[in-house]
Amino acid sequence: MAEESGHRDKGSGANAGHNGERDSAILKKLEDGSLKLYELDKELSPIDAIRIRREYVKQKTGAGLENIGIFSIDVDRVTKRNCENMIGTVQIPLGVAGPIRISGGHAQGDYWLPLATTEGALIASVNRGCSAITKAGGAEVRLLHDGMTRAPVFATDSVVHAVQVCDWVSVHRDELKAAAESTTSHGKLTDIVTFVAGTSVFVRLEFDTKDAMGMNMVTIASAKVGDLISQGTGARLVALSGNMCADKKPAAINGIMGRGRGVVAGIALSHELIQSVLKTNARTLFEVNYRKNLVGSARAGSMGFNAHAANVVAAMFIACGQDAAHAIDGSTCITTVDLTENGAYVAITLPSLPVGTVGGGTGVDSQQECLQLLGVAGSGTPPGTNAKKLAEIIGAAVLAGELSLLGALAAQHLARAHQQLGRG
Amino acid sequence: MAEESGHRDKGSGANAGHNGERDSAILKKLEDGSLKLYELDKELSPIDAIRIRREYVKQKTGAGLENIGIFSIDVDRVTKRNCENMIGTVQIPLGVAGPIRISGGHAQGDYWLPLATTEGALIASVNRGCSAITKAGGAEVRLLHDGMTRAPVFATDSVVHAVQVCDWVSVHRDELKAAAESTTSHGKLTDIVTFVAGTSVFVRLEFDTKDAMGMNMVTIASAKVGDLISQGTGARLVALSGNMCADKKPAAINGIMGRGRGVVAGIALSHELIQSVLKTNARTLFEVNYRKNLVGSARAGSMGFNAHAANVVAAMFIACGQDAAHAIDGSTCITTVDLTENGAYVAITLPSLPVGTVGGGTGVDSQQECLQLLGVAGSGTPPGTNAKKLAEIIGAAVLAGELSLLGALAAQHLARAHQQLGRG
Amino acid sequence: MAEESGHRDKGSGANAGHNGERDSAILKKLEDGSLKLYELDKELSPIDAIRIRREYVKQKTGAGLENIGIFSIDVDRVTKRNCENMIGTVQIPLGVAGPIRISGGHAQGDYWLPLATTEGALIASVNRGCSAITKAGGAEVRLLHDGMTRAPVFATDSVVHAVQVCDWVSVHRDELKAAAESTTSHGKLTDIVTFVAGTSVFVRLEFDTKDAMGMNMVTIASAKVGDLISQGTGARLVALSGNMCADKKPAAINGIMGRGRGVVAGIALSHELIQSVLKTNARTLFEVNYRKNLVGSARAGSMGFNAHAANVVAAMFIACGQDAAHAIDGSTCITTVDLTENGAYVAITLPSLPVGTVGGGTGVDSQQECLQLLGVAGSGTPPGTNAKKLAEIIGAAVLAGELSLLGALAAQHLARAHQQLGRG
Amino acid sequence: MAEESGHRDKGSGANAGHNGERDSAILKKLEDGSLKLYELDKELSPIDAIRIRREYVKQKTGAGLENIGIFSIDVDRVTKRNCENMIGTVQIPLGVAGPIRISGGHAQGDYWLPLATTEGALIASVNRGCSAITKAGGAEVRLLHDGMTRAPVFATDSVVHAVQVCDWVSVHRDELKAAAESTTSHGKLTDIVTFVAGTSVFVRLEFDTKDAMGMNMVTIASAKVGDLISQGTGARLVALSGNMCADKKPAAINGIMGRGRGVVAGIALSHELIQSVLKTNARTLFEVNYRKNLVGSARAGSMGFNAHAANVVAAMFIACGQDAAHAIDGSTCITTVDLTENGAYVAITLPSLPVGTVGGGTGVDSQQECLQLLGVAGSGTPPGTNAKKLAEIIGAAVLAGELSLLGALAAQHLARAHQQLGRG
Repeated sequence: MAEESGHRDKGSGANAGHNGERDSAILKKLEDGSLKLYELDKELSPIDAIRIRREYVKQKTGAGLENIGIFSIDVDRVTKRNCENMIGTVQIPLGVAGPIRISGGHAQGDYWLPLATTEGALIASVNRGCSAITKAGGAEVRLLHDGMTRAPVFATDSVVHAVQVCDWVSVHRDELKAAAESTTSHGKLTDIVTFVAGTSVFVRLEFDTKDAMGMNMVTIASAKVGDLISQGTGARLVALSGNMCADKKPAAINGIMGRGRGVVAGIALSHELIQSVLKTNARTLFEVNYRKNLVGSARAGSMGFNAHAANVVAAMFIACGQDAAHAIDGSTCITTVDLTENGAYVAITLPSLPVGTVGGGTGVDSQQECLQLLGVAGSGTPPGTNAKKLAEIIGAAVLAGELSLLGALAAQHLARAHQQLGRG
Repeated sequence: MAEESGHRDKGSGANAGHNGERDSAILKKLEDGSLKLYELDKELSPIDAIRIRREYVKQKTGAGLENIGIFSIDVDRVTKRNCENMIGTVQIPLGVAGPIRISGGHAQGDYWLPLATTEGALIASVNRGCSAITKAGGAEVRLLHDGMTRAPVFATDSVVHAVQVCDWVSVHRDELKAAAESTTSHGKLTDIVTFVAGTSVFVRLEFDTKDAMGMNMVTIASAKVGDLISQGTGARLVALSGNMCADKKPAAINGIMGRGRGVVAGIALSHELIQSVLKTNARTLFEVNYRKNLVGSARAGSMGFNAHAANVVAAMFIACGQDAAHAIDGSTCITTVDLTENGAYVAITLPSLPVGTVGGGTGVDSQQECLQLLGVAGSGTPPGTNAKKLAEIIGAAVLAGELSLLGALAAQHLARAHQQLGRG
Repeated sequence: MAEESGHRDKGSGANAGHNGERDSAILKKLEDGSLKLYELDKELSPIDAIRIRREYVKQKTGAGLENIGIFSIDVDRVTKRNCENMIGTVQIPLGVAGPIRISGGHAQGDYWLPLATTEGALIASVNRGCSAITKAGGAEVRLLHDGMTRAPVFATDSVVHAVQVCDWVSVHRDELKAAAESTTSHGKLTDIVTFVAGTSVFVRLEFDTKDAMGMNMVTIASAKVGDLISQGTGARLVALSGNMCADKKPAAINGIMGRGRGVVAGIALSHELIQSVLKTNARTLFEVNYRKNLVGSARAGSMGFNAHAANVVAAMFIACGQDAAHAIDGSTCITTVDLTENGAYVAITLPSLPVGTVGGGTGVDSQQECLQLLGVAGSGTPPGTNAKKLAEIIGAAVLAGELSLLGALAAQHLARAHQQLGRG
Repeated sequence: MAEESGHRDKGSGANAGHNGERDSAILKKLEDGSLKLYELDKELSPIDAIRIRREYVKQKTGAGLENIGIFSIDVDRVTKRNCENMIGTVQIPLGVAGPIRISGGHAQGDYWLPLATTEGALIASVNRGCSAITKAGGAEVRLLHDGMTRAPVFATDSVVHAVQVCDWVSVHRDELKAAAESTTSHGKLTDIVTFVAGTSVFVRLEFDTKDAMGMNMVTIASAKVGDLISQGTGARLVALSGNMCADKKPAAINGIMGRGRGVVAGIALSHELIQSVLKTNARTLFEVNYRKNLVGSARAGSMGFNAHAANVVAAMFIACGQDAAHAIDGSTCITTVDLTENGAYVAITLPSLPVGTVGGGTGVDSQQECLQLLGVAGSGTPPGTNAKKLAEIIGAAVLAGELSLLGALAAQHLARAHQQLGRG
């Protein structure tokens, strides 16, 4: 995109004059309430609506919003699909780590990882992990699961009615599948599981959503299925999502049954490599993981048995146009360090990583570029391939992050142990 | 920031020529490995390092990175504090919801909420919630807790040794507090709690970090404390974070003991308002929350008893320069709907929201503007006030989001119930 | 059993004389360590071994063990199957509650519930619940699930190997099923699910165990399956139980996938009945459940969303010869109270109740009598029927317990509310 | 107790005749409903009430209840304190394991462990663990916590009101403490912590209950405190237990804040001992614990990071007159195996073991004898000592059980590994 055609605010420039009067009139209407902020999109071009809205908020709050007004993404698309009441963008610093060698079921080769973050030292840390992994021959990565879920909840009259609903669903499985798939050109319904809690029935529908993360697709299909179940059984559809999906919450059901893409990644490190790259030894690396990630997490009543998977998942998600709130379910990771004869085998398991390469935020220009950087932009061949690749790449990235932080903690531990001896 | 002085990539412009040779030489060194990507910062100005690095990654991957190269934030600061191996920024669409009236212990007045997201309909949804809340007189918000934690883990020789370490800490509390506070000009150590799991001892240190989110401050202080404990007891400091902190993982300990700022927000809605704004009734609103957020979450083994708190927390965090990975702990929310004589009382409880208004990503220009928009940029008077305000505002925003989604689900439910009757 | 043939200690009686010397000799050997306590079973009849062992422990500790020595159960059987190093029995007070009317999928009719407990007021409480349920027409009960599980854990060399093991299991499902079923005359393998965590692979095997609780059957079958998997894949079988079973621990996997018998029970109570039997009203009953069992449990990071299901499960388990430690998984209950037009619908959901009517402690005489009292002793017709009935009866009993305690709390609440008004 | 004075049913004997008419009359009244089963206690001596009640249930169900009618415990006491509608007892087989050497903070010396169970092999397994521990010099045991809790829940009008209630409690702490302690001659209120979830306020009261398990004491004191809070703040007391106690449910709050007695126990095992007693080696022992108890439990969403702590806790609880339902909270154990230079250090952590040596079922004769066997019957000197000892003994017993089962799994693993090699 050439600088001249950027959608940046040029309000203070030469051509602002002839818009001045219109702008003032609109701002006045906003002020007296005769026009709502969200109605600007109907009256103005997206870029003008954004500008006026920002101007209005600026007036109301006294904040300077200059940087928010400087952006280059295609707002015609974004205002329709991604963001209401838009006033601009926030610029999230983007760095790269890598290259990281990945030997996955789908992702194969060397990758530069785009990480959008404001946490100093994070990218340097992941970078060191990438280096260790690549030197060790590359991360082994495999998919464990592939399927996005939605679980509408129904109210029934009694526990007997509740069980009847489950039975009805079981009998009408094919019919429900056909109905679900009639609402989507890509998605395939792959599983239906029912759960009862008193008079509430949860019907957990799982779909192969190909390259899409798939929540929208799945929600639409679930509405169709929900109506059929309701009509067929007399159960009332209370909510299209009954929290057994479970979306954007840490939940055991996601770990156990999987949600989105499940990924496991591992790397065998020799004693030499642990010493030269991580400045520690296998035993210490192991102990940090054991006392911190396993015992400490157990003692804390935690669902996260890892060092900082969330950092990497969130940074990759923001960079790649994934839904940032999905970092919640996406980061419930178990990190393991096994002592081996030759050193250590370090692995991460992400049972429920919701990712896609089409739809959602993936089409926003800068995010699309991050996907391109990974070679996974858009729909893959065959469909689903790109999303699977992205999942595996994120899995490898999390492994790099875990490796590096465990190594750093272990090295520090070693250093302190030495100090302590010296002081003793 | 004036447009002319922007740090945007002007590489293809007129003045690119005289740098061309130098650039080529550097790219060559990067290619042959004699220069590392992260070493560019030493050789070049930040803006040039970013440009060359981006150019290099572009060459290696074939991706177009134009939009990533368009930004206006002060990269001198960002490359030092927030982002290594920087190649540009991703632009996250930013919209506003509001105004929302807040009657908090610290935040008082009407606020426009900045939300950075790519999830279509989210801002519109929060906006509707803001409208309902403001019409109902404003969200009641209070802080429940204020204190950031770090819990180093120590290895001991035996369970007897482990208990001795706890006793030693108890006896030397004042000394540890003094040592901790010697490392920081702002932070105050407010609590020390010890936990034993076999031979592992976890010492959970809590600090008043004023306007900072405080992880760095707390980690540095913990290192000091950790060394003293180690010296005093002979216990080995295994890791500065032993996962009983617990940082960026969903963990019961955060809910129970609190971490960061704990917030509770509520709103009383009359029958009329529920009907006019949310298009449903109190009973249905209640039932959605009961079957979905309480029963469904319980059945799913979830730590999240809410509809979509993570969406709002993540969008506000990204906008306001908070650590996006903190949305994991920050969003473990319980949403409740009480039936009252006059309608319903809806509330959200966020026991562990890690937020700050100084440090971390808060200084990045566009994010700083979002904080200004809320009137909470920088350090408050007295110190801590701005962070407390921000926590309360996010609490109110989560309430708006919950209210709106519960309302939408309930209205849909009502609509379907009507349809079903019609069809019957 | 006639008193005269009882196995009670008659040591102080007339015929003790001629054993006196032998006994002294044996006690001496125990004292000097030439005979081990557990070796007594080889040398003596069970009843004599029990007596001498008790005598020895009495001498060593100075404790009077008279009551422990008074029992009537058939110790020939018990010492072989249920208890090593036996010294007698403890007598657990046994009361009855009921009759409770049950309208189940399997249990039909009025039942007297045997409850073995030392907690004063528990049986009276359950009794009141039974009364309310019976007056309301009987508890509706249904089975949700039927299948006992074991999940051996295997160590693999890498995550790639781990996934290969899962694939191998998937391909060899029929072969594994045949092997598993070759080890048992009753059990049927009904499901195999694999889980990966790093290099660990968990293979969760589920069996229809008919009237047996089935852990032994399932463990033996799992050993066979485990060996085959190990041979076929090169994975090392680390432990026959890998804690994804999960046996005698509270675990989300049991709630989500079910273990043992899953049961749901409910009852519709009219406003009149709530008033007359429970001395409260529907709204208050509901509120107690809402704030205590749902919100309180969520806030506590609990897996138990109920009032005191464990009391009833433990008391029925002890009475009926079930494994008391199974009360842990058996009592992870969700209790719900729905407000209805006519009053309230109260329900309990027990997703993982491990029960049987043959094997284990069910054959101990007094426990066998409790099963007879319920009409479910021994194997049912067809096999499995008795265990299913028992599960449903326990479900109804838990419902009675919940109803009664919620009612009592609610009535107390009402009483206090009245007091408070009076004082105001 | 001499056999002649036993309370056993002698109904079929010579002296039954003169009661025959009265009995028939009563049975008739029970049949026609003019007398309730629970009213028998008012009309008859306990022993007669038990007999008639059993006779009635026998008639109604056709079950033979002979063994249930044979018992020796003092039913005058039991029917008043422990069991309503009593019909007899169930006889739970009781064995001993040991001796186990314990080097605790309170328990010191060699103990024979009474275990009441019907699970074959359990006592033999614990016995082997005791042997290993004793040979290794004795279990190191320490208390981590001592305090029983109750957490009434209050309803408030708003989140503001909720926070006011917390503040009020904070200000009136001394007054509440005095009121609580006025209700008990032994208990001391040691802590008050408040929690808010929306409009619900939970006030967690902790007491030193000396030798009592203390639930009754604590509940009575909580009622008093609850009324004061209610009067002082206008908050409605909804339930004396708000499930943040948390009683008889698995809950993170108990692990984190402790409930009842918290215990940690450990043992250092040499390579030789692991080989000779457990027939395995340190590395394998470690691996079983790592993959099963840590990784497996994490993957299962479990709160129990142990092999079978519940078995030992339940068997000791039943033997020693503890509340069997407390095995739920009592068994949430973390088991760790550390590799050491000389072998392994195995430890268990039980953060919330509710035990007492006075009150509840501890006074039932056979159970009292089990406490005598351990030297902890009745109140200790000073008060509390016996309960602390009992907690430490159970901790050591759990350690023995864990050690033995881990060892058995490890040995099996080794055996299989050898087989596998042989077959290869």
